[in-house]
Amino acid sequence: MIAVLKGGTTAAQKENLIKWLSAQGLTVHVSEGEYKTVLGLVGDTSKIDMDLLSGLEIVDQVARISEPFKSANRKFHPDDTVVSACTSKLGGGNFGLIAGPCSVESEEQICTIAAAVKAAGATFLRGGAFKPRTSPYDFQGMGAEGIELLLKAKAATGLPIVTEIMSISHLDLFADVDVIQVGARNMQNFELLKQLGRCDKPILLKRGMSATLKEMLMSAEYIMAGGNEQVILCERGIRSFDPYTRNVLDLAAVPLLKELSHLPVVVDPSHATGAARLVRPMALAAAAAGADGLMIEVHNDPMHALCDGAQSVTPDQFAEIAKAVATVRTAL
Amino acid sequence: MIAVLKGGTTAAQKENLIKWLSAQGLTVHVSEGEYKTVLGLVGDTSKIDMDLLSGLEIVDQVARISEPFKSANRKFHPDDTVVSACTSKLGGGNFGLIAGPCSVESEEQICTIAAAVKAAGATFLRGGAFKPRTSPYDFQGMGAEGIELLLKAKAATGLPIVTEIMSISHLDLFADVDVIQVGARNMQNFELLKQLGRCDKPILLKRGMSATLKEMLMSAEYIMAGGNEQVILCERGIRSFDPYTRNVLDLAAVPLLKELSHLPVVVDPSHATGAARLVRPMALAAAAAGADGLMIEVHNDPMHALCDGAQSVTPDQFAEIAKAVATVRTAL
Amino acid sequence: MIAVLKGGTTAAQKENLIKWLSAQGLTVHVSEGEYKTVLGLVGDTSKIDMDLLSGLEIVDQVARISEPFKSANRKFHPDDTVVSACTSKLGGGNFGLIAGPCSVESEEQICTIAAAVKAAGATFLRGGAFKPRTSPYDFQGMGAEGIELLLKAKAATGLPIVTEIMSISHLDLFADVDVIQVGARNMQNFELLKQLGRCDKPILLKRGMSATLKEMLMSAEYIMAGGNEQVILCERGIRSFDPYTRNVLDLAAVPLLKELSHLPVVVDPSHATGAARLVRPMALAAAAAGADGLMIEVHNDPMHALCDGAQSVTPDQFAEIAKAVATVRTAL
Amino acid sequence: MIAVLKGGTTAAQKENLIKWLSAQGLTVHVSEGEYKTVLGLVGDTSKIDMDLLSGLEIVDQVARISEPFKSANRKFHPDDTVVSACTSKLGGGNFGLIAGPCSVESEEQICTIAAAVKAAGATFLRGGAFKPRTSPYDFQGMGAEGIELLLKAKAATGLPIVTEIMSISHLDLFADVDVIQVGARNMQNFELLKQLGRCDKPILLKRGMSATLKEMLMSAEYIMAGGNEQVILCERGIRSFDPYTRNVLDLAAVPLLKELSHLPVVVDPSHATGAARLVRPMALAAAAAGADGLMIEVHNDPMHALCDGAQSVTPDQFAEIAKAVATVRTAL
Repeated sequence: MIAVLKGGTTAAQKENLIKWLSAQGLTVHVSEGEYKTVLGLVGDTSKIDMDLLSGLEIVDQVARISEPFKSANRKFHPDDTVVSACTSKLGGGNFGLIAGPCSVESEEQICTIAAAVKAAGATFLRGGAFKPRTSPYDFQGMGAEGIELLLKAKAATGLPIVTEIMSISHLDLFADVDVIQVGARNMQNFELLKQLGRCDKPILLKRGMSATLKEMLMSAEYIMAGGNEQVILCERGIRSFDPYTRNVLDLAAVPLLKELSHLPVVVDPSHATGAARLVRPMALAAAAAGADGLMIEVHNDPMHALCDGAQSVTPDQFAEIAKAVATVRTAL
Repeated sequence: MIAVLKGGTTAAQKENLIKWLSAQGLTVHVSEGEYKTVLGLVGDTSKIDMDLLSGLEIVDQVARISEPFKSANRKFHPDDTVVSACTSKLGGGNFGLIAGPCSVESEEQICTIAAAVKAAGATFLRGGAFKPRTSPYDFQGMGAEGIELLLKAKAATGLPIVTEIMSISHLDLFADVDVIQVGARNMQNFELLKQLGRCDKPILLKRGMSATLKEMLMSAEYIMAGGNEQVILCERGIRSFDPYTRNVLDLAAVPLLKELSHLPVVVDPSHATGAARLVRPMALAAAAAGADGLMIEVHNDPMHALCDGAQSVTPDQFAEIAKAVATVRTAL
Repeated sequence: MIAVLKGGTTAAQKENLIKWLSAQGLTVHVSEGEYKTVLGLVGDTSKIDMDLLSGLEIVDQVARISEPFKSANRKFHPDDTVVSACTSKLGGGNFGLIAGPCSVESEEQICTIAAAVKAAGATFLRGGAFKPRTSPYDFQGMGAEGIELLLKAKAATGLPIVTEIMSISHLDLFADVDVIQVGARNMQNFELLKQLGRCDKPILLKRGMSATLKEMLMSAEYIMAGGNEQVILCERGIRSFDPYTRNVLDLAAVPLLKELSHLPVVVDPSHATGAARLVRPMALAAAAAGADGLMIEVHNDPMHALCDGAQSVTPDQFAEIAKAVATVRTAL
Repeated sequence: MIAVLKGGTTAAQKENLIKWLSAQGLTVHVSEGEYKTVLGLVGDTSKIDMDLLSGLEIVDQVARISEPFKSANRKFHPDDTVVSACTSKLGGGNFGLIAGPCSVESEEQICTIAAAVKAAGATFLRGGAFKPRTSPYDFQGMGAEGIELLLKAKAATGLPIVTEIMSISHLDLFADVDVIQVGARNMQNFELLKQLGRCDKPILLKRGMSATLKEMLMSAEYIMAGGNEQVILCERGIRSFDPYTRNVLDLAAVPLLKELSHLPVVVDPSHATGAARLVRPMALAAAAAGADGLMIEVHNDPMHALCDGAQSVTPDQFAEIAKAVATVRTAL
């Protein structure tokens, strides 16, 4: 860690600070510049509160040299993590194709879609039972019954299921779920992350609307610090200034996260763009950028059919996209 | 609600959509333009899923005309809400001054600061017992013990206390807390909001890092829909592109929120700027912009004293700020 | 265009506004809702000032139904524009590979790189002669001499050259330049755009740091309104909140711009990411997303060689990237 | 300047880099950490290209310790700059009130408004003659004739005039203008800034839509490096993610810019919010935050009158705002 002191800092102030830092167990290297002084802090700086240090009147800036995440850090775990559920693997060269409807609506719906996406090559079935909705008056999902229906679809197809948890008080209902999803709005619900760190299921962690990559990795670290090392990172678009699309899909996050961490990285082009017609080009781009998998919304309900298309893609469109993605991956 | 259909939509497609909308209980006004068709939807549109509608292939754009929040809406509740705790009031002309340390650290610390901020005019004592930290390795707060210490400071000063909740499983510990704070990272932790909607304590709801004003009001609505109408909105800075300050304090949010809603609006200049020297100008600006209160971090710990200042202001600085704020409010 | 009037608007106010709108040559359709009134404005609304209209006290919101750009609009020009320079084409199925150094530094440098990128498949040579630098004390480019050197490299390789203009007063120096680039910082330098609209050379228009897609198309429209229809759009990353990378590359802009407009769209992964090691994955992703071309920084100067790599890629890395891009394009 | 080298950098690589840095005239202090090496660079680092350095494969991060702006830097010029025009002063305790219409429309309009704002306490008259418009089809201003009319209003009232320049080729028309404005879209039109650095008139420099404070100061530096030290900085709102207001007014920019620089800082609440009803609270907040002046749009045209208000405030509203602002300033 480096702390830069402002010009005009007195010798006594410097000495006080250095004494305090040394008392925290750090070795302090002092380098005097023309206008400012730089302190190089060597030792276990993970316990130093950067905000506190940078808030000191005499401190101009503080920079961490080594990242504060350990378990998620590729530096200390060079090999790719492979997440397994049933017979499906994701990461370390295993491409995961997670597909299914936004919400579970009925047994027929989820079983039909599950069969269709499996036939098209999906390796995981997704479906929302508990739905985070901006408005309390919007449909909040089928809840426990939705999970029951997902399990029926799993029984029928053999696909492991991925579904979102919104409160740790629901954890019992997730006993037979294969992969638990943490949504963007809960990426920094630290109490939830801590509890999930104590369970033995893979966690799919979505990036918060305006989370930096390092914040996302720190959230993964919350889970891993509890002993659960099966974390999948999911880029799903970030908030930006152009109202023309719902979010901006940040595909450079794929190689960057894979460089910083050994955890697998998947991309959700459906939520990122909010438009069915953009799912295909963004899915291909994600595959080309090196993603370990994709998470795609697929529906077949009549309302959509009625109007020839909607935000989710149809099973046929999904099959075509899966084929094109495979072509890109084979080519590279 | 208005839905604009794309040019090239066929008569059959239009008819199908109108039939479906009518079946939802809406009256549909059709207005044909040169290139596009506009549908005006009249009736209870709060149940229509905007995302679904706008995702339809034939729909170009959708706009809500009436806001989807009801309980928080000034239109239906023109009078200012006044939140009360002990003898302190906030809103409707009652200016609230919420002050205290970032974290509760010891009985001596919290009681000393409580006495000092009370003497300077504070009407609420704040202090963190459960702390949301980006890193799992950072200090997470004193927890239950921190709340005990806050209650001692309350007993000594009579100031009602404000402290953050991070998990509904901790609710029992908050039995004697006066105002429960929901932090920025939990603004869309909908399950937590729902539960807090069933308790009878005022909730201080902080704006999420990249939450729009309407999303913030929808989160207030989650609480109010459960029956708890004592909600205080708190602007605490939003995320932006300039790394030079931690956040951007969005002061126009004050008049805008007060226009849209009857709920009181307070401003937190400490978290918004991350710099003690900016607290004074931003506190004055917030008061001038019409805020119903301020939330300010005040400390007196030796580490800070050691280096002559830090992110929080000292009790003396707070007293001076409180006086200047009162001057501005009297002048206006 | 649609204007939504607030609830509480009086009949006299409505009548006044409708009279004024009619006087502008528009037909006004009135649709009365429960709380609000919607005016559908039919006719040539391109002359209506949206800001003025939406600022009126009685107006709640205004939305354009037809886009205000005409010449750049695919709706009116369904066929892809193909931009030609020397024997190179870009757009309409012709993939353009624009490569070269950030700045022209010497004859040897530019000619060596030009030969190398040509051998690797580049179809245009880029190189900065006038450089927009944040600081007035940074190197501002070789200016006129830089253009001379680019022309020598063109003579040697036959590659058409692309270089940035920063002031219309330099236009004479660009007489033999093949494609004139407008940088991100000048995307809304409207006087420059107007002048370039009167010249007969292709213009490569880079997206501004925080420009929406529609603003970018309006800037293209400034050029096209002057008669110059040879415009290439370039996505080069937008500003966001994560300091970890320089910009966020918005690849969904590729399909979206191509949907809205017939102009070719290229992607600059070098400026978007600021990191040589991210150029390859983002170049592949851009190709997979359907870009009409790429703009890549390639260098070979000793300072870079000294430290084994830098922000630009080396000629060898470029050759490998060009091959991988071709593989992806062939596969799709 | 500090450069942090990655772990794994070889001794030979380090030595090469240090040799190269020394050759640039810098003294290099080396500090070896457990994982990384920190180089402290002492000497004139303003010529070192940060982008180049940070792009090197072996470099992890680079931070400037001393700011790259000199002329605008308060560190080297502790006293406030006072900008003068006619008998009006701005900065150093002189509060400037710049008011007038968005666009000059007619002699009657500009002279009427000028008289009204002067009576209310304005010290400068603003009015657009050349208008930057997103669309080439929108009204582009009256141009030279607009400046003529502003000069008539100046003759009638004695108020110095402020108006925007969009191209250096128009400079002759600005011979009698008192303060030349550079708009947000041209904040990084470096060629324009350089030319304005050679003229002897005060320049009002507006912050770009997504410009950081340091970028804004570097743009001021472009003007000052040419010899023109009369620069006024103007905060006018930045681009953010909430479509509910046009921009986010960043009022912390006021104390921050005044800390970094000796130049006066004014705030434009009209453009920042795009809503007349928000001008008053934001003007008061700006004054409370310590701004050196305000720039406010005032109109009196019949279209606005027709509908009882619009984006600009009326002369009466302006007079009331000016009075309230004075009250706040007196109180503090």
